[in-house]
Amino acid sequence: MHKTIGILGGMGPAATADLMNKIIQRTDASCDQEHIPMIIDSNTRIPDRTAAIKGEGASPVTELIKSAKRLQEAGADFLIIPCNTAHHFIPDIEKEVPIPIVDMMKETADLLKGRSIKCAAVLATEGTYLSGRYDRVLGEKGIEVVNPNPAQQKTLMSLIYDYIKSGITEADKLPRNQITEIVNDLRSRGAEGILLACTELPLAFAIMDMYNDSCVDPTLVLAEAAIREAGGKIR
Amino acid sequence: MHKTIGILGGMGPAATADLMNKIIQRTDASCDQEHIPMIIDSNTRIPDRTAAIKGEGASPVTELIKSAKRLQEAGADFLIIPCNTAHHFIPDIEKEVPIPIVDMMKETADLLKGRSIKCAAVLATEGTYLSGRYDRVLGEKGIEVVNPNPAQQKTLMSLIYDYIKSGITEADKLPRNQITEIVNDLRSRGAEGILLACTELPLAFAIMDMYNDSCVDPTLVLAEAAIREAGGKIR
Repeated sequence: MHKTIGILGGMGPAATADLMNKIIQRTDASCDQEHIPMIIDSNTRIPDRTAAIKGEGASPVTELIKSAKRLQEAGADFLIIPCNTAHHFIPDIEKEVPIPIVDMMKETADLLKGRSIKCAAVLATEGTYLSGRYDRVLGEKGIEVVNPNPAQQKTLMSLIYDYIKSGITEADKLPRNQITEIVNDLRSRGAEGILLACTELPLAFAIMDMYNDSCVDPTLVLAEAAIREAGGKIR
Repeated sequence: MHKTIGILGGMGPAATADLMNKIIQRTDASCDQEHIPMIIDSNTRIPDRTAAIKGEGASPVTELIKSAKRLQEAGADFLIIPCNTAHHFIPDIEKEVPIPIVDMMKETADLLKGRSIKCAAVLATEGTYLSGRYDRVLGEKGIEVVNPNPAQQKTLMSLIYDYIKSGITEADKLPRNQITEIVNDLRSRGAEGILLACTELPLAFAIMDMYNDSCVDPTLVLAEAAIREAGGKIR
Protein backbone atom coordinates (compact mmCIF):
# COMPACT_ATOMS: atom_id res chain seq x y z
CA MET A 1 0.00 0.00 0.00
CA HIS A 2 1.28 3.43 -1.00
CA LYS A 3 1.87 6.27 1.39
CA THR A 4 -0.23 9.37 0.70
CA ILE A 5 1.66 12.32 -0.81
CA GLY A 6 0.79 15.78 0.55
CA ILE A 7 1.51 18.67 -1.83
CA LEU A 8 1.82 22.02 -0.10
CA GLY A 9 1.11 24.13 -3.15
CA GLY A 10 -0.38 27.21 -4.71
CA MET A 11 3.04 28.87 -5.16
CA GLY A 12 1.98 29.24 -7.97
CA PRO A 13 -1.00 27.07 -8.81
CA ALA A 14 0.24 26.18 -12.32
CA ALA A 15 3.53 24.94 -10.84
CA THR A 16 1.54 22.82 -8.38
CA ALA A 17 -0.44 21.25 -11.23
CA ASP A 18 2.85 20.67 -13.06
CA LEU A 19 4.26 18.70 -10.09
CA MET A 20 1.04 16.72 -9.83
CA ASN A 21 1.21 15.88 -13.54
CA LYS A 22 4.87 14.87 -13.33
CA ILE A 23 4.11 12.49 -10.45
CA ILE A 24 1.25 10.91 -12.44
CA GLN A 25 3.25 10.65 -15.68
CA ARG A 26 6.30 9.15 -13.98
CA THR A 27 4.35 6.58 -11.92
CA ASP A 28 4.32 3.08 -13.37
CA ALA A 29 0.58 2.37 -13.18
CA SER A 30 -1.87 0.67 -15.52
CA CYS A 31 -5.12 1.79 -13.90
CA ASP A 32 -6.43 4.53 -11.55
CA GLN A 33 -6.04 2.32 -8.47
CA GLU A 34 -2.32 1.71 -9.10
CA HIS A 35 -1.59 5.44 -8.84
CA ILE A 36 -0.37 7.05 -5.61
CA PRO A 37 -2.98 8.85 -3.48
CA MET A 38 -2.27 12.57 -3.19
CA ILE A 39 -3.78 15.43 -1.29
CA ILE A 40 -3.01 18.84 -2.72
CA ASP A 41 -3.54 22.13 -0.97
CA SER A 42 -3.33 24.85 -3.58
CA ASN A 43 -3.22 27.58 -0.96
CA THR A 44 -3.15 30.79 -2.93
CA ARG A 45 -3.47 32.78 0.30
CA ILE A 46 0.25 32.21 1.03
CA PRO A 47 1.99 35.59 0.68
CA ASP A 48 4.77 36.01 -1.87
CA ARG A 49 7.98 34.33 -0.67
CA THR A 50 10.46 36.58 -2.45
CA ALA A 51 8.80 39.74 -1.09
CA ALA A 52 9.03 38.29 2.43
CA ILE A 53 12.71 37.32 2.11
CA LYS A 54 13.47 40.81 0.78
CA GLY A 55 11.73 42.28 3.84
CA GLU A 56 9.13 43.91 1.58
CA GLY A 57 6.08 41.76 2.31
CA ALA A 58 4.18 39.66 4.85
CA SER A 59 5.71 36.40 6.04
CA PRO A 60 4.31 33.24 4.42
CA VAL A 61 5.03 31.14 7.52
CA THR A 62 1.55 31.23 9.12
CA GLU A 63 -0.18 30.08 5.92
CA LEU A 64 2.54 27.51 5.16
CA ILE A 65 2.00 25.96 8.59
CA LYS A 66 -1.81 26.05 8.19
CA SER A 67 -1.50 24.16 4.90
CA ALA A 68 0.97 21.65 6.31
CA LYS A 69 -1.37 20.87 9.23
CA ARG A 70 -4.37 20.66 6.91
CA LEU A 71 -2.55 18.12 4.75
CA GLN A 72 -1.40 16.11 7.75
CA GLU A 73 -4.93 16.00 9.17
CA ALA A 74 -6.29 14.95 5.78
CA GLY A 75 -3.97 11.94 5.82
CA ALA A 76 -0.73 12.98 4.11
CA ASP A 77 2.20 10.83 5.23
CA PHE A 78 4.83 13.30 4.05
CA LEU A 79 4.97 16.70 2.35
CA ILE A 80 6.48 18.10 -0.81
CA ILE A 81 6.57 21.81 -1.65
CA PRO A 82 6.57 22.85 -5.33
CA CYS A 83 8.18 26.24 -4.67
CA ASN A 84 11.96 26.53 -4.44
CA THR A 85 11.79 29.92 -2.69
CA ALA A 86 9.46 28.53 0.01
CA HIS A 87 12.18 26.01 0.97
CA HIS A 88 13.78 28.89 2.89
CA PHE A 89 10.95 28.49 5.44
CA ILE A 90 11.18 24.69 5.90
CA PRO A 91 12.67 24.96 9.43
CA ASP A 92 9.61 27.01 10.50
CA ILE A 93 7.23 24.34 9.13
CA GLU A 94 9.19 21.43 10.60
CA LYS A 95 8.94 22.99 14.05
CA GLU A 96 5.13 22.79 13.91
CA VAL A 97 4.32 19.70 11.84
CA PRO A 98 5.68 16.23 12.61
CA ILE A 99 5.41 14.58 9.18
CA PRO A 100 8.60 14.70 7.07
CA ILE A 101 9.22 17.08 4.18
CA VAL A 102 11.01 15.70 1.11
CA ASP A 103 13.40 18.51 0.20
CA MET A 104 13.48 19.48 -3.49
CA MET A 105 16.84 21.25 -3.18
CA LYS A 106 18.58 18.36 -1.43
CA GLU A 107 17.12 15.84 -3.90
CA THR A 108 18.38 18.00 -6.78
CA ALA A 109 21.85 18.25 -5.21
CA ASP A 110 21.94 14.45 -4.86
CA LEU A 111 20.96 14.02 -8.51
CA LEU A 112 23.68 16.44 -9.70
CA LYS A 113 26.26 14.70 -7.52
CA GLY A 114 25.14 11.34 -8.97
CA ARG A 115 25.66 12.72 -12.47
CA SER A 116 29.12 14.04 -11.49
CA ILE A 117 28.16 17.61 -12.30
CA LYS A 118 30.77 19.90 -10.74
CA CYS A 119 29.31 23.28 -11.63
CA ALA A 120 25.65 24.28 -11.97
CA ALA A 121 23.80 27.47 -12.87
CA VAL A 122 20.83 28.30 -10.68
CA LEU A 123 17.95 30.10 -12.43
CA ALA A 124 15.63 31.28 -9.68
CA THR A 125 13.75 34.10 -8.00
CA GLU A 126 15.46 36.94 -6.16
CA GLY A 127 14.18 35.38 -2.92
CA THR A 128 15.98 32.12 -3.66
CA TYR A 129 19.26 33.96 -4.36
CA LEU A 130 18.93 36.05 -1.19
CA SER A 131 18.10 32.93 0.84
CA GLY A 132 21.42 31.36 -0.20
CA ARG A 133 19.96 27.91 0.44
CA TYR A 134 20.83 26.47 -3.01
CA ASP A 135 24.44 27.70 -2.66
CA ARG A 136 24.65 25.94 0.71
CA VAL A 137 22.93 22.69 -0.28
CA LEU A 138 24.91 22.39 -3.53
CA GLY A 139 28.12 23.50 -1.79
CA GLU A 140 27.74 20.66 0.72
CA LYS A 141 27.96 18.23 -2.22
CA GLY A 142 31.02 20.00 -3.62
CA ILE A 143 29.06 21.55 -6.50
CA GLU A 144 30.06 25.04 -7.57
CA VAL A 145 27.23 27.49 -8.27
CA VAL A 146 27.10 30.05 -11.08
CA ASN A 147 24.45 32.70 -10.52
CA PRO A 148 23.07 35.14 -13.11
CA ASN A 149 24.16 38.77 -12.73
CA PRO A 150 21.64 41.33 -11.38
CA ALA A 151 20.35 42.33 -14.83
CA GLN A 152 19.88 38.67 -15.76
CA GLN A 153 18.11 38.04 -12.44
CA LYS A 154 15.71 40.86 -13.30
CA THR A 155 14.90 39.23 -16.64
CA LEU A 156 14.23 35.90 -14.89
CA MET A 157 11.98 37.60 -12.30
CA SER A 158 10.04 39.18 -15.17
CA LEU A 159 9.67 35.82 -16.93
CA ILE A 160 8.37 34.26 -13.69
CA TYR A 161 6.11 37.08 -12.48
CA ASP A 162 5.06 39.09 -15.55
CA TYR A 163 4.50 36.05 -17.76
CA ILE A 164 3.92 32.66 -16.10
CA LYS A 165 2.40 33.80 -12.79
CA SER A 166 0.33 36.38 -14.72
CA GLY A 167 -1.08 33.71 -17.01
CA ILE A 168 0.71 34.93 -20.17
CA THR A 169 1.71 31.59 -21.62
CA GLU A 170 1.66 32.07 -25.40
CA ALA A 171 5.01 30.96 -26.86
CA ASP A 172 5.41 33.99 -29.11
CA LYS A 173 4.98 36.42 -26.19
CA LEU A 174 7.75 34.97 -24.01
CA PRO A 175 11.26 36.55 -24.06
CA ARG A 176 12.97 33.54 -25.64
CA ASN A 177 15.99 35.42 -27.04
CA GLN A 178 16.83 37.08 -23.73
CA ILE A 179 16.59 33.78 -21.86
CA THR A 180 18.72 32.00 -24.47
CA GLU A 181 21.41 34.67 -24.04
CA ILE A 182 21.36 34.18 -20.26
CA VAL A 183 21.67 30.40 -20.59
CA ASN A 184 24.54 30.75 -23.07
CA ASP A 185 26.34 33.20 -20.80
CA LEU A 186 25.99 30.87 -17.78
CA ARG A 187 27.34 27.99 -19.88
CA SER A 188 30.31 30.09 -20.97
CA ARG A 189 30.97 30.74 -17.28
CA GLY A 190 31.37 27.00 -16.65
CA ALA A 191 27.87 25.75 -15.82
CA GLU A 192 27.37 22.13 -16.89
CA GLY A 193 23.81 21.83 -15.59
CA ILE A 194 21.16 24.56 -15.88
CA LEU A 195 18.87 24.34 -12.84
CA LEU A 196 15.30 25.52 -13.50
CA ALA A 197 15.20 26.37 -9.81
CA CYS A 198 11.89 28.18 -9.66
CA THR A 199 8.86 25.95 -10.30
CA GLU A 200 7.51 28.37 -12.93
CA LEU A 201 10.66 27.95 -15.03
CA PRO A 202 10.08 24.37 -16.25
CA LEU A 203 6.70 25.63 -17.51
CA ALA A 204 8.31 28.65 -19.22
CA PHE A 205 11.12 26.57 -20.75
CA ALA A 206 8.62 23.98 -22.06
CA ILE A 207 6.54 26.72 -23.69
CA MET A 208 9.66 28.30 -25.25
CA ASP A 209 10.80 24.85 -26.48
CA MET A 210 13.98 25.23 -24.38
CA TYR A 211 13.25 22.32 -21.99
CA ASN A 212 16.01 19.90 -23.02
CA ASP A 213 18.66 17.53 -21.68
CA SER A 214 20.96 20.32 -20.47
CA CYS A 215 18.22 21.50 -18.10
CA VAL A 216 17.81 20.02 -14.65
CA ASP A 217 14.18 20.29 -13.52
CA PRO A 218 13.88 20.22 -9.70
CA THR A 219 10.08 19.75 -10.04
CA LEU A 220 10.69 16.48 -11.92
CA VAL A 221 13.42 15.48 -9.44
CA LEU A 222 10.94 16.07 -6.61
CA ALA A 223 8.20 14.14 -8.41
CA GLU A 224 10.45 11.09 -8.69
CA ALA A 225 11.64 11.41 -5.08
CA ALA A 226 8.00 11.55 -3.94
CA ILE A 227 7.10 8.44 -5.93
CA ARG A 228 9.98 6.56 -4.29
CA GLU A 229 9.09 7.90 -0.81
CA ALA A 230 5.46 6.80 -1.30
CA GLY A 231 6.55 3.28 -2.25
CA GLY A 232 5.63 3.64 -5.92
CA LYS A 233 7.53 2.53 -8.99
CA ILE A 234 8.94 4.97 -11.54
CA ARG A 235 7.81 4.31 -15.11
CA MET B 1 -12.61 36.65 -0.84
CA HIS B 2 -12.92 33.48 -2.90
CA LYS B 3 -14.63 30.33 -1.73
CA THR B 4 -12.35 27.28 -1.59
CA ILE B 5 -12.91 24.69 -4.31
CA GLY B 6 -12.81 21.03 -3.25
CA ILE B 7 -11.92 18.58 -6.03
CA LEU B 8 -12.99 15.02 -5.31
CA GLY B 9 -10.59 13.36 -7.69
CA GLY B 10 -8.33 10.50 -8.59
CA MET B 11 -10.80 9.08 -11.13
CA GLY B 12 -8.34 9.07 -12.84
CA PRO B 13 -5.51 11.23 -11.54
CA ALA B 14 -4.60 12.70 -14.96
CA ALA B 15 -8.19 13.86 -15.42
CA THR B 16 -8.04 15.47 -11.98
CA ALA B 17 -4.88 17.37 -12.94
CA ASP B 18 -6.59 18.38 -16.20
CA LEU B 19 -9.51 19.93 -14.28
CA MET B 20 -7.11 21.70 -11.95
CA ASN B 21 -5.18 23.10 -14.93
CA LYS B 22 -8.37 24.24 -16.67
CA ILE B 23 -9.49 26.12 -13.55
CA ILE B 24 -6.08 27.84 -13.31
CA GLN B 25 -5.91 28.69 -17.03
CA ARG B 26 -9.46 30.05 -17.13
CA THR B 27 -9.14 32.19 -13.97
CA ASP B 28 -8.46 35.86 -14.59
CA ALA B 29 -5.51 36.35 -12.22
CA SER B 30 -2.25 38.26 -12.48
CA CYS B 31 -0.43 36.74 -9.49
CA ASP B 32 -0.56 33.63 -7.26
CA GLN B 33 -2.72 35.37 -4.65
CA GLU B 34 -5.47 36.24 -7.17
CA HIS B 35 -6.03 32.56 -7.95
CA ILE B 36 -8.78 30.54 -6.26
CA PRO B 37 -7.75 28.31 -3.33
CA MET B 38 -8.32 24.63 -4.07
CA ILE B 39 -8.01 21.44 -2.10
CA ILE B 40 -7.68 18.33 -4.22
CA ASP B 41 -8.08 14.79 -3.00
CA SER B 42 -6.64 12.50 -5.66
CA ASN B 43 -8.09 9.42 -4.00
CA THR B 44 -6.88 6.56 -6.13
CA ARG B 45 -8.35 4.09 -3.65
CA ILE B 46 -11.85 4.73 -5.06
CA PRO B 47 -12.93 1.52 -6.83
CA ASP B 48 -13.76 1.62 -10.54
CA ARG B 49 -17.15 3.26 -11.13
CA THR B 50 -18.10 1.40 -14.32
CA ALA B 51 -17.34 -1.99 -12.76
CA ALA B 52 -19.59 -1.08 -9.80
CA ILE B 53 -22.49 0.10 -11.99
CA LYS B 54 -22.20 -3.11 -14.03
CA GLY B 55 -22.42 -5.09 -10.77
CA GLU B 56 -18.94 -6.49 -11.40
CA GLY B 57 -16.92 -4.62 -8.76
CA ALA B 58 -16.90 -3.03 -5.31
CA SER B 59 -18.98 0.08 -4.71
CA PRO B 60 -17.05 3.36 -4.75
CA VAL B 61 -19.51 5.01 -2.32
CA THR B 62 -17.53 4.50 0.93
CA GLU B 63 -14.35 6.04 -0.53
CA LEU B 64 -16.29 8.83 -2.28
CA ILE B 65 -17.85 9.82 1.05
CA LYS B 66 -14.49 9.60 2.85
CA SER B 67 -12.97 11.98 0.30
CA ALA B 68 -15.92 14.37 0.43
CA LYS B 69 -15.68 14.56 4.22
CA ARG B 70 -11.90 14.99 4.08
CA LEU B 71 -12.31 17.92 1.69
CA GLN B 72 -15.03 19.50 3.77
CA GLU B 73 -12.94 19.22 6.94
CA ALA B 74 -9.95 20.72 5.11
CA GLY B 75 -12.03 23.79 4.31
CA ALA B 76 -13.68 23.18 0.92
CA ASP B 77 -16.84 25.27 0.50
CA PHE B 78 -18.22 23.12 -2.32
CA LEU B 79 -17.22 20.05 -4.29
CA ILE B 80 -16.62 19.21 -7.92
CA ILE B 81 -16.04 15.69 -9.22
CA PRO B 82 -13.90 15.22 -12.36
CA CYS B 83 -15.45 11.86 -13.25
CA ASN B 84 -18.68 11.71 -15.24
CA THR B 85 -19.38 8.10 -14.24
CA ALA B 86 -19.04 8.94 -10.53
CA HIS B 87 -21.94 11.42 -10.89
CA HIS B 88 -24.20 8.36 -10.68
CA PHE B 89 -23.33 8.23 -6.95
CA ILE B 90 -23.96 11.92 -6.12
CA PRO B 91 -27.17 11.18 -4.14
CA ASP B 92 -25.14 8.86 -1.87
CA ILE B 93 -22.55 11.58 -1.23
CA GLU B 94 -25.13 14.32 -0.70
CA LYS B 95 -26.80 12.24 2.01
CA GLU B 96 -23.58 12.28 4.08
CA VAL B 97 -21.89 15.61 3.31
CA PRO B 98 -23.63 18.98 3.71
CA ILE B 99 -21.52 21.13 1.31
CA PRO B 100 -22.97 21.47 -2.20
CA ILE B 101 -21.72 19.60 -5.27
CA VAL B 102 -21.53 21.51 -8.55
CA ASP B 103 -22.87 18.98 -11.06
CA MET B 104 -20.80 18.59 -14.25
CA MET B 105 -23.66 16.95 -16.18
CA LYS B 106 -26.21 19.64 -15.30
CA GLU B 107 -23.74 22.43 -16.09
CA THR B 108 -23.06 20.80 -19.46
CA ALA B 109 -26.78 20.47 -20.19
CA ASP B 110 -27.24 24.18 -19.39
CA LEU B 111 -24.38 25.10 -21.73
CA LEU B 112 -25.83 23.02 -24.60
CA LYS B 113 -29.27 24.53 -24.01
CA GLY B 114 -27.71 28.03 -24.06
CA ARG B 115 -26.07 27.21 -27.39
CA SER B 116 -29.43 25.93 -28.74
CA ILE B 117 -28.01 22.48 -29.41
CA LYS B 118 -30.93 20.11 -29.97
CA CYS B 119 -29.07 16.84 -30.37
CA ALA B 120 -25.82 15.73 -28.74
CA ALA B 121 -23.64 12.62 -28.92
CA VAL B 122 -22.40 11.34 -25.59
CA LEU B 123 -18.95 9.68 -25.65
CA ALA B 124 -18.52 8.00 -22.29
CA THR B 125 -17.79 4.87 -20.29
CA GLU B 126 -20.10 1.86 -20.19
CA GLY B 127 -20.94 2.87 -16.61
CA THR B 128 -22.17 6.28 -17.73
CA TYR B 129 -24.38 4.73 -20.43
CA LEU B 130 -25.81 2.16 -17.99
CA SER B 131 -26.41 4.89 -15.40
CA GLY B 132 -28.63 6.77 -17.87
CA ARG B 133 -27.96 10.00 -16.02
CA TYR B 134 -26.80 11.97 -19.09
CA ASP B 135 -29.91 10.88 -21.03
CA ARG B 136 -32.06 12.10 -18.14
CA VAL B 137 -30.25 15.39 -17.48
CA LEU B 138 -30.06 16.28 -21.20
CA GLY B 139 -33.62 15.06 -21.77
CA GLU B 140 -34.88 17.47 -19.09
CA LYS B 141 -33.51 20.31 -21.22
CA GLY B 142 -35.13 18.93 -24.35
CA ILE B 143 -31.84 17.75 -25.82
CA GLU B 144 -31.90 14.53 -27.79
CA VAL B 145 -29.05 12.08 -27.14
CA VAL B 146 -27.24 9.97 -29.72
CA ASN B 147 -25.26 7.14 -28.16
CA PRO B 148 -22.55 5.06 -29.87
CA ASN B 149 -23.48 1.47 -30.73
CA PRO B 150 -22.07 -1.39 -28.61
CA ALA B 151 -18.99 -1.91 -30.82
CA GLN B 152 -18.25 1.84 -30.74
CA GLN B 153 -18.71 1.86 -26.96
CA LYS B 154 -16.11 -0.90 -26.73
CA THR B 155 -13.63 1.18 -28.73
CA LEU B 156 -14.22 4.16 -26.42
CA MET B 157 -13.74 1.98 -23.31
CA SER B 158 -10.46 0.77 -24.78
CA LEU B 159 -9.30 4.34 -25.50
CA ILE B 160 -10.15 5.32 -21.90
CA TYR B 161 -8.83 2.25 -20.07
CA ASP B 162 -6.14 0.68 -22.27
CA TYR B 163 -4.57 3.98 -23.28
CA ILE B 164 -5.18 7.06 -21.09
CA LYS B 165 -5.75 5.35 -17.73
CA SER B 166 -2.84 2.98 -18.52
CA GLY B 167 -0.50 5.91 -19.18
CA ILE B 168 -0.15 5.28 -22.93
CA THR B 169 -0.30 8.84 -24.17
CA GLU B 170 1.90 8.94 -27.29
CA ALA B 171 -0.09 10.42 -30.18
CA ASP B 172 0.99 7.79 -32.70
CA LYS B 173 -0.19 4.93 -30.47
CA LEU B 174 -3.77 6.15 -30.03
CA PRO B 175 -6.57 4.78 -32.29
CA ARG B 176 -7.22 8.06 -34.08
CA ASN B 177 -8.83 6.58 -37.21
CA GLN B 178 -11.30 4.46 -35.26
CA ILE B 179 -12.33 7.42 -33.10
CA THR B 180 -12.69 9.68 -36.16
CA GLU B 181 -15.03 7.10 -37.73
CA ILE B 182 -17.14 7.01 -34.56
CA VAL B 183 -17.39 10.81 -34.42
CA ASN B 184 -18.33 10.98 -38.12
CA ASP B 185 -20.98 8.29 -37.65
CA LEU B 186 -22.50 10.12 -34.66
CA ARG B 187 -22.58 13.36 -36.68
CA SER B 188 -24.31 11.58 -39.56
CA ARG B 189 -26.91 10.41 -37.04
CA GLY B 190 -27.76 14.02 -36.18
CA ALA B 191 -25.39 14.96 -33.34
CA GLU B 192 -24.56 18.68 -33.38
CA GLY B 193 -22.38 18.60 -30.27
CA ILE B 194 -19.90 15.83 -29.42
CA LEU B 195 -19.76 15.48 -25.62
CA LEU B 196 -16.38 14.24 -24.33
CA ALA B 197 -18.33 12.84 -21.39
CA CYS B 198 -15.59 10.89 -19.69
CA THR B 199 -12.84 13.03 -18.16
CA GLU B 200 -10.13 10.97 -19.89
CA LEU B 201 -11.57 11.87 -23.32
CA PRO B 202 -10.57 15.57 -23.43
CA LEU B 203 -7.01 14.34 -22.75
CA ALA B 204 -7.23 11.70 -25.49
CA PHE B 205 -8.78 14.11 -28.00
CA ALA B 206 -6.11 16.76 -27.27
CA ILE B 207 -3.33 14.19 -27.84
CA MET B 208 -4.96 13.02 -31.10
CA ASP B 209 -5.36 16.67 -32.23
CA MET B 210 -9.15 16.13 -32.37
CA TYR B 211 -10.05 18.61 -29.58
CA ASN B 212 -11.85 21.28 -31.59
CA ASP B 213 -14.90 23.53 -31.66
CA SER B 214 -17.34 20.71 -32.39
CA CYS B 215 -16.37 19.05 -29.09
CA VAL B 216 -18.05 19.97 -25.83
CA ASP B 217 -15.68 19.35 -22.92
CA PRO B 218 -17.58 18.84 -19.63
CA THR B 219 -14.29 19.17 -17.69
CA LEU B 220 -13.89 22.71 -19.06
CA VAL B 221 -17.59 23.45 -18.44
CA LEU B 222 -17.11 22.31 -14.83
CA ALA B 223 -13.92 24.38 -14.46
CA GLU B 224 -15.77 27.53 -15.49
CA ALA B 225 -18.76 26.71 -13.28
CA ALA B 226 -16.41 26.23 -10.32
CA ILE B 227 -14.68 29.57 -10.95
CA ARG B 228 -18.08 31.31 -10.95
CA GLU B 229 -19.24 29.41 -7.83
CA ALA B 230 -16.02 30.40 -6.02
CA GLY B 231 -16.56 34.06 -6.87
CA GLY B 232 -13.70 34.23 -9.38
CA LYS B 233 -13.61 35.89 -12.78
CA ILE B 234 -13.20 33.95 -16.01
CA ARG B 235 -10.29 35.07 -18.17
